[in-house]
Amino acid sequence: MDAYALPYTFSQRAQKLTSSTIREILKVTERPEVISFAGGLPSPKGFPVQAMTAAFDRVLAQNPQTALQYGPTEGYAPLRAWVANDLKRTGAHNVKPEEVLIVSGSQQALDMLGKLFIDPGSKVLVEAPSYLGALQSFSLFEPAYVSVPTDDGGVIPDALTAERAAGARFIYALPNFQNPTGLTLDLARRKALVERCAQLQVPIIEDDPYGELRYAGEPQPGLLGLGREAGATVIRLGTFSKVLAPGLRLGYIVAPRPIIAKLVQIKQATDLHTAMLTQMAVYETIKDGFLATHLPVVRDLYKEQCGYMLDAMDKHFPETVSWTRPQGGMFIWVTLPVHIDGTALLARAIERNVAFVPGEPFFAGEQQAQKNTLRLSFVTVAEDKIRTGIEILGQLIKES
Amino acid sequence: MDAYALPYTFSQRAQKLTSSTIREILKVTERPEVISFAGGLPSPKGFPVQAMTAAFDRVLAQNPQTALQYGPTEGYAPLRAWVANDLKRTGAHNVKPEEVLIVSGSQQALDMLGKLFIDPGSKVLVEAPSYLGALQSFSLFEPAYVSVPTDDGGVIPDALTAERAAGARFIYALPNFQNPTGLTLDLARRKALVERCAQLQVPIIEDDPYGELRYAGEPQPGLLGLGREAGATVIRLGTFSKVLAPGLRLGYIVAPRPIIAKLVQIKQATDLHTAMLTQMAVYETIKDGFLATHLPVVRDLYKEQCGYMLDAMDKHFPETVSWTRPQGGMFIWVTLPVHIDGTALLARAIERNVAFVPGEPFFAGEQQAQKNTLRLSFVTVAEDKIRTGIEILGQLIKES
Repeated sequence: MDAYALPYTFSQRAQKLTSSTIREILKVTERPEVISFAGGLPSPKGFPVQAMTAAFDRVLAQNPQTALQYGPTEGYAPLRAWVANDLKRTGAHNVKPEEVLIVSGSQQALDMLGKLFIDPGSKVLVEAPSYLGALQSFSLFEPAYVSVPTDDGGVIPDALTAERAAGARFIYALPNFQNPTGLTLDLARRKALVERCAQLQVPIIEDDPYGELRYAGEPQPGLLGLGREAGATVIRLGTFSKVLAPGLRLGYIVAPRPIIAKLVQIKQATDLHTAMLTQMAVYETIKDGFLATHLPVVRDLYKEQCGYMLDAMDKHFPETVSWTRPQGGMFIWVTLPVHIDGTALLARAIERNVAFVPGEPFFAGEQQAQKNTLRLSFVTVAEDKIRTGIEILGQLIKES
Repeated sequence: MDAYALPYTFSQRAQKLTSSTIREILKVTERPEVISFAGGLPSPKGFPVQAMTAAFDRVLAQNPQTALQYGPTEGYAPLRAWVANDLKRTGAHNVKPEEVLIVSGSQQALDMLGKLFIDPGSKVLVEAPSYLGALQSFSLFEPAYVSVPTDDGGVIPDALTAERAAGARFIYALPNFQNPTGLTLDLARRKALVERCAQLQVPIIEDDPYGELRYAGEPQPGLLGLGREAGATVIRLGTFSKVLAPGLRLGYIVAPRPIIAKLVQIKQATDLHTAMLTQMAVYETIKDGFLATHLPVVRDLYKEQCGYMLDAMDKHFPETVSWTRPQGGMFIWVTLPVHIDGTALLARAIERNVAFVPGEPFFAGEQQAQKNTLRLSFVTVAEDKIRTGIEILGQLIKES
């Protein structure tokens, strides 16, 4: 008999999951002949293999029974303390270890925050455009998205009107080198945003995966520190994916204690706790200041890669196209003439063995998606391939 | 200003999360003077530290860029193939690697299956009693539990009536050395259960964390193989927590492909994928038959520990008390005279520095909880402390 023919009933939320057209198109990017600007992968050249191997060895030699046993849901205490202290660099000076919860990558943080805050139909504020992975996570909990407009300076605080904010469970914001736009909020906007959120009583989820990858301009204080000064509720997400390696799946949430307490209960039901060995090995790697010497290497690498792409764009893209010039991170956002649809351009680019992610899926909510946009990642592609790929894209745009 | 005083609104599901009285009581078990039979920790003596250290070293030496990079949501392909092949030992001979999804421990599988199958109010069938962690995971999705009665032979297939089963999204079953009872289904019940589920079109979630820890009696075929023969839809959960180490957070789901396809979308939104380094190191540890020599050592250890506790119970518990004699796994289930409440007994036991988990929270649904029950774990307590702790419990029961 065929076990597969029997009926079963999925939940409403699961029935709404559809396989993404764009994901299907992008499957071809796995072919080696394709020059892909579609990925969101950090550069493996930045992975500190030697330091991490030594750290795993030390942990397994010195404390294997703790590393391999079940651990506390809150996370490994020394790592929580390290994170609390590290946040001083973002201007948050009084974070306590008890306000830090270790999670299995910041994608898991998004899932847990969806569980914590979103009922079906709950209003959730997102930047337009916003990080696709967050939209996917939150969508499982069936929110009603309301988007907050952005311009060349990122999200516009004045656009967070009382009407837009009324009843919102939170606003999800990426202040540094946003995915997908690469844009960064300046200090005035940061202050305006946290003040408005304090006044309108909207909690802020600050997602900062790329903050340590700044290679131009001046570091800006994070929303966590500014928000605490302004009386706003800020929940900050961080990750070790971009400063060490993403395959570890290690990140954290910082939040007021009553929120952490609920998140601990949710985390326990979600996966008990994050792997102890990974937490201990990462702590062992970074505890004596390793990042201070490691991060400049990674930043230089990303700066160089970004430069290759910007140079090629300056040379090969027509004047009708505009794009962002990121101060850090991994992405450049391109705005095409309004008559060119990013998804249609992708189909033609794929025929020429070049790939990227069209802008449309990064938009949620009532605001119309800007279909004449696309996201380019410059991080893992070799210099000559960046030049070739951008030249081809330039030709295709000119022909459109 | 105080950031903590600002209002925010939790989701309905999060508001329903309450901190467990029993968890609060059990916090004292962390004191070193407490003899705790409350834990669910595997014995660290069974952790293969040397083999795993060598495996992590080999992976980081040979393939660091894959191990530390983002990986496929489905899991590491060689590990999926290993799992598919390994299931032959349970009588499931035709599992394909594409039917295997790697997850971050089987607790995560429960969360993902809750997302996949449960709407608020959906009927979910559980054994009475059932695994507390599963009840916690599923509860976040607000099901209506209906419990299926059990007796000394485990869950009673005949009790799965058409009325009980009508509209159920699934039945959650632990056929081997169940947590909390330690009971194992015999072959006749297994066959009756899968046939009834095929007939009533109820998918089965078979959770088998302890199957490899059998130290008495004969191995029985798993519900996956039997179910496929009978035409039932079976989703099987497995874990490396008990055969290698729980701190790794590594498990798997086996299911028909249309279910795996949805679960992959859910997993992507939940945490992108499980850590590649962990998957590769576990595969490296087990790929050449390591478990065939390692598991007998673990089984002997658990058998010995179980024996210490059963001996002590025979000696110190009064005749009014009955208990299970497990063929494997980690737990013994105790039934007290009806007038003794397990939670009340715990309060008195804590005063004497002995701890266990009362039976009540393991019951869900309309069936009345058997409050005169408790769960004992014998795995991580030293022989002399087992004898002392059981003697104290015996005295307290006699005095009740």
